Amino acid sequence: MALAYLVYPGAVHTRLHHALGAYHLMCNALIELKAKGVEITQEEEIAVKAAILLHDVGHGPFSHALEGHLIKGTHHEYLSLYMMQAMNEEFNGELDLAIEIFTNKHHKLFLHQLISGQIDVDRMDYLTRDSFFTGVSEGVIGYDRILKMLTVKDGKLMVEEKGIYSIEKFLVARRQMYWQVYLHKTVLSAEIMLINILKRAKSLAEDGDINVLIGGTIDYFLINFDGVVNKNMLDKFCKLDDIDIQFAIKQWSNHTDFVLKELCNRLLNRKLLKIKLQSEPFEQAIINEYIEEASKILGIDKELAAYFVLNGEADNTMYNTGNEKINILFKDGTFKDIVSIDNPLIHQTISAPIKKFYICSLR
Amino acid sequence: MALAYLVYPGAVHTRLHHALGAYHLMCNALIELKAKGVEITQEEEIAVKAAILLHDVGHGPFSHALEGHLIKGTHHEYLSLYMMQAMNEEFNGELDLAIEIFTNKHHKLFLHQLISGQIDVDRMDYLTRDSFFTGVSEGVIGYDRILKMLTVKDGKLMVEEKGIYSIEKFLVARRQMYWQVYLHKTVLSAEIMLINILKRAKSLAEDGDINVLIGGTIDYFLINFDGVVNKNMLDKFCKLDDIDIQFAIKQWSNHTDFVLKELCNRLLNRKLLKIKLQSEPFEQAIINEYIEEASKILGIDKELAAYFVLNGEADNTMYNTGNEKINILFKDGTFKDIVSIDNPLIHQTISAPIKKFYICSLR
Amino acid sequence: MALAYLVYPGAVHTRLHHALGAYHLMCNALIELKAKGVEITQEEEIAVKAAILLHDVGHGPFSHALEGHLIKGTHHEYLSLYMMQAMNEEFNGELDLAIEIFTNKHHKLFLHQLISGQIDVDRMDYLTRDSFFTGVSEGVIGYDRILKMLTVKDGKLMVEEKGIYSIEKFLVARRQMYWQVYLHKTVLSAEIMLINILKRAKSLAEDGDINVLIGGTIDYFLINFDGVVNKNMLDKFCKLDDIDIQFAIKQWSNHTDFVLKELCNRLLNRKLLKIKLQSEPFEQAIINEYIEEASKILGIDKELAAYFVLNGEADNTMYNTGNEKINILFKDGTFKDIVSIDNPLIHQTISAPIKKFYICSLR
Amino acid sequence: MALAYLVYPGAVHTRLHHALGAYHLMCNALIELKAKGVEITQEEEIAVKAAILLHDVGHGPFSHALEGHLIKGTHHEYLSLYMMQAMNEEFNGELDLAIEIFTNKHHKLFLHQLISGQIDVDRMDYLTRDSFFTGVSEGVIGYDRILKMLTVKDGKLMVEEKGIYSIEKFLVARRQMYWQVYLHKTVLSAEIMLINILKRAKSLAEDGDINVLIGGTIDYFLINFDGVVNKNMLDKFCKLDDIDIQFAIKQWSNHTDFVLKELCNRLLNRKLLKIKLQSEPFEQAIINEYIEEASKILGIDKELAAYFVLNGEADNTMYNTGNEKINILFKDGTFKDIVSIDNPLIHQTISAPIKKFYICSLR
Repeated sequence: MALAYLVYPGAVHTRLHHALGAYHLMCNALIELKAKGVEITQEEEIAVKAAILLHDVGHGPFSHALEGHLIKGTHHEYLSLYMMQAMNEEFNGELDLAIEIFTNKHHKLFLHQLISGQIDVDRMDYLTRDSFFTGVSEGVIGYDRILKMLTVKDGKLMVEEKGIYSIEKFLVARRQMYWQVYLHKTVLSAEIMLINILKRAKSLAEDGDINVLIGGTIDYFLINFDGVVNKNMLDKFCKLDDIDIQFAIKQWSNHTDFVLKELCNRLLNRKLLKIKLQSEPFEQAIINEYIEEASKILGIDKELAAYFVLNGEADNTMYNTGNEKINILFKDGTFKDIVSIDNPLIHQTISAPIKKFYICSLR
Repeated sequence: MALAYLVYPGAVHTRLHHALGAYHLMCNALIELKAKGVEITQEEEIAVKAAILLHDVGHGPFSHALEGHLIKGTHHEYLSLYMMQAMNEEFNGELDLAIEIFTNKHHKLFLHQLISGQIDVDRMDYLTRDSFFTGVSEGVIGYDRILKMLTVKDGKLMVEEKGIYSIEKFLVARRQMYWQVYLHKTVLSAEIMLINILKRAKSLAEDGDINVLIGGTIDYFLINFDGVVNKNMLDKFCKLDDIDIQFAIKQWSNHTDFVLKELCNRLLNRKLLKIKLQSEPFEQAIINEYIEEASKILGIDKELAAYFVLNGEADNTMYNTGNEKINILFKDGTFKDIVSIDNPLIHQTISAPIKKFYICSLR
Repeated sequence: MALAYLVYPGAVHTRLHHALGAYHLMCNALIELKAKGVEITQEEEIAVKAAILLHDVGHGPFSHALEGHLIKGTHHEYLSLYMMQAMNEEFNGELDLAIEIFTNKHHKLFLHQLISGQIDVDRMDYLTRDSFFTGVSEGVIGYDRILKMLTVKDGKLMVEEKGIYSIEKFLVARRQMYWQVYLHKTVLSAEIMLINILKRAKSLAEDGDINVLIGGTIDYFLINFDGVVNKNMLDKFCKLDDIDIQFAIKQWSNHTDFVLKELCNRLLNRKLLKIKLQSEPFEQAIINEYIEEASKILGIDKELAAYFVLNGEADNTMYNTGNEKINILFKDGTFKDIVSIDNPLIHQTISAPIKKFYICSLR
Repeated sequence: MALAYLVYPGAVHTRLHHALGAYHLMCNALIELKAKGVEITQEEEIAVKAAILLHDVGHGPFSHALEGHLIKGTHHEYLSLYMMQAMNEEFNGELDLAIEIFTNKHHKLFLHQLISGQIDVDRMDYLTRDSFFTGVSEGVIGYDRILKMLTVKDGKLMVEEKGIYSIEKFLVARRQMYWQVYLHKTVLSAEIMLINILKRAKSLAEDGDINVLIGGTIDYFLINFDGVVNKNMLDKFCKLDDIDIQFAIKQWSNHTDFVLKELCNRLLNRKLLKIKLQSEPFEQAIINEYIEEASKILGIDKELAAYFVLNGEADNTMYNTGNEKINILFKDGTFKDIVSIDNPLIHQTISAPIKKFYICSLR
């Protein structure tokens, strides 16, 4: 959960926990579906379990927070895929089917949907786990009941009619976790500062400042990486973890560049930028005003002051809730997309915009 | 939870648990408020604790399910009050202030609101407890966080602005508990049968059938009780509990009256009436059809068959959610009713009708 | 847990919960053993599951507390067996194998040991469940880990070497539950009073006092039952539950016999007899002194006063820990009885006498 | 919990959690004691809370595992004290009383005992927390009940008589946590490797190998630190955390020194040394044999091979259970040390040696 521990000290669980948890839920989901007569071969079972274990393997340090910033231009799902393919070569094709399912090319669509869909085991695990470790009880979902309500019709994953309240709860819980945890003001501010630290370090490195290098794997991503994913890059990527970033920040807190040093010290000592949220974008005039103010307070020119005034939009794209197609299967064998069902809470939860505009500054 | 254990076997917790739990939450609420500088005297503290311990003491056997059926014409809150007054006499007025608060005559309104309001400790306890014992995780609420968000302004209980998501969750959880637990189809059917059993027993008793009497306190309420609450009636009432009803049902399952015997045997052996729910009232023609059917199947005349065809509406009146006035206090000192705050989920939850029409029958 | 709720208000869980819980653990145990290559046929699996579901079906009202008092001369395990046999007739022999396992006549001994042995699923469930509902955390055991440590060697249930600490904990937890819960002073006193109530009622009934009869099934066991288990007796027994006893006590609290009335009123109003425990039997002189005292206080002759002075021994026979043979299987394939393993805690726990002498009285 | 996560993946909780948890238990303990009439002034309350918050502040990276190895010659409690003193200067003596209590110079001895004694809140928190995060249910203790049993007599902390089973359980739980978690074979092996990594790095640094330095604070402790605690040293120490060590290990896994590189790679890739435990010390002949073997396998001389053959004793000194004086207060006002009370389980638990000899090697 990247820097969420700054607000929720308990949120120190790891990606390994999540992978094991999602795997566990997948095992249970398969038991349920097979007990309902859905045909799943031994090979498919192993493949879909392998795929869920590996589904997040492409995440870099601080996962979503640094997505697209440290490893420019590649989404973690592509990196997961590259790594699965690399492993597949080593394993002589034993991951062929896992990759087929992961990339949604297998004809039994529900297997892919269990990994990546509106009610996949990935989400069920992270909502439950993040809710548990943050102590935010609003995120508690009835994952075991949802699993029991899953079924397959025409090759697609569906939810039995009587599971509709559990789905309602699932959607509400997810919405609440966005606002209370994932997009929490303080967490957002800290993660934005982290992004800016990386940005500044890269900028300095590009200008030839070798003092930015710390002697570890991160140096490669600061100066050498050109956006091309290849074997060498994957090797480096696998060696990179949160420790490299955290150590770099500790080192950079003594760097001679004022911007880098200041941002690192503020993050280490929890002197975070103030953040404001609103439903409309901030006007350029206001942003300029904030920059000017920062320029005066810190005694630096406006170009550099811009590192302390950050605006943007916080939305759910990083957790991808785009297409809320959840099919509800009725007792008579017909099914409907959940949005066409008469349930005001579900409509609102789905249509309510999960998007806000923020500005971070010294003010 | 009356007969909910027929669906959720774990739901065997007692009213004593609830009283102790609500008392516990009250203690915590008072600690919070006092720490925020709200003035609460030692006398008020004792009084409001006594009041919450006693708030449900007027509940009869099977509480909500038999409310208004066994003890005709008196709501449990009035009986609670009568009993508190009777105890007050014994205690030489030591409950004066508790009664003042319970009846909302004390000038510090928030004390009453903690006992009986939109976000009182009563509801916080029963939602948490019922959710726990049924295993319905959708009912989990963040009661400790809500307690920390409570505050008092102008003598009224309010919720701090940052507690709004917890309130949102609270409302959604309560809504889900209605549909998944309190108004669960099977539970509803069983409770309606229980009501009809009492109705039939009373009818037989009124017709002079002394075999309906079982030799215990319940006999008084079958034949003697005239709706007047007095000392004698309260004495009897205090001795009446679930055991009397359950024993009566066991006895009546051998009674000579077909209707009484059949209803009792069906309830004891979990052969419940089938139930249908819809959002519109059932038409009389349909009801008549069901009665005719029952008459044929059971070989009894239509008047008696009507005991097996029951229609009505299930709503939240028994849990009273009528007036959703929850005041949110903003940092600038102003406050607004929660319904005037821009939060689509809260609006929907509050305005969504919690009301359905049912028909129970042999079909 | 009979009357334990007088001390631990949460202890209101039912025998149904226990049966379902033990069944659940049995399912898990079978999955583990099969995964380790232990051969268990489909028939055996169904049979052992049926047997665990039914293993306690012969328990009467208030289970252990009234064992041997209400239903004279028959242990609940025999009644369970009679009922299984009666059901087996109805089911055309479908329970043949279940009964074979239950009575330890099946050649795969470990199946019986899972139902009734030193570390059977029965105990694992009741320790866990009773610990949960009483809130006595000392009784928490690692049942899931113990299940994973189970194995079979030479047809017998064994525990893998590395499970030894879990077994140590299991034995300590059970020991603690005896002293803190099952043999808790207040619980003991209440249960002894309950036994005496039944004894007095029977005595009166035998003397022809028809006012002792309450019109329900319990009457049969007060006057008619002659110790012979037959179809008629089983029919009656199945209809008898806690409600009959509880209703009888309420009725008898108004009876004309002083002893019966007094004992019932004391139990209903929680005015329990005082209890003393010691490791040596109480001397007859002391008992006589107590009886004399009771005789004076209550103004009744000594024969009747003896109903208020009860001495005896509290031990674990009702939970049967007699023969602690738990085999530990080592990696080299050899095994040893746990008592011959060098672990001081286990020795002490097993050899420590779980037996105390008590006297209940008015003092 | 240092490297315990290699066995128990969930054990990633932090020292901050422990400090907050122990603080929470201290708050509850004080409420209990004050409710029992124990006199505690406002100043003492603040002081003892400050002291428990700071009691572990002197722990370095990987706490117990590296105790005495990274920061030679100073125990963490002394460092905690130094840091409290340094803070006290900054705060103009506001920590005077906290330090007095922490160093056991305050006349109300029980305040110190709550921080550091046989049943202090420190242990109650870490047993509960470590049990929770590892999932080892054997470590569950009834901390809330123990807190309720605490009392003070003659200025000393005591346990009420009826709390004896909870204390029994506490001692058993602690014993089980040693063997199942703190001294788990695999954890022990990993932590010993970590110690040897530091030892090798220091040895290289002392021989002038500047490639061992990584540019961070750890360098100071590898080459400069002379065992003298002063302001400069404390400054460095405060900046040092697990990240520095973890980053160093990643860097050293590419170092040219075979021993350092090999140990780091083995730790990073979980190729741990094999470990054997026994109750007697290993003979020198066996140790030599193992070293010779390692020398051959790795192709290095025996002096270096000794880095891969480590023997020693694992005991509880790092958790200090030395003096088990727990006073039990009886209803008559007398008290006894728990070891003189007739309870075989407690005797055994206390007297059972928590000490084993280990040898780690390639074998």
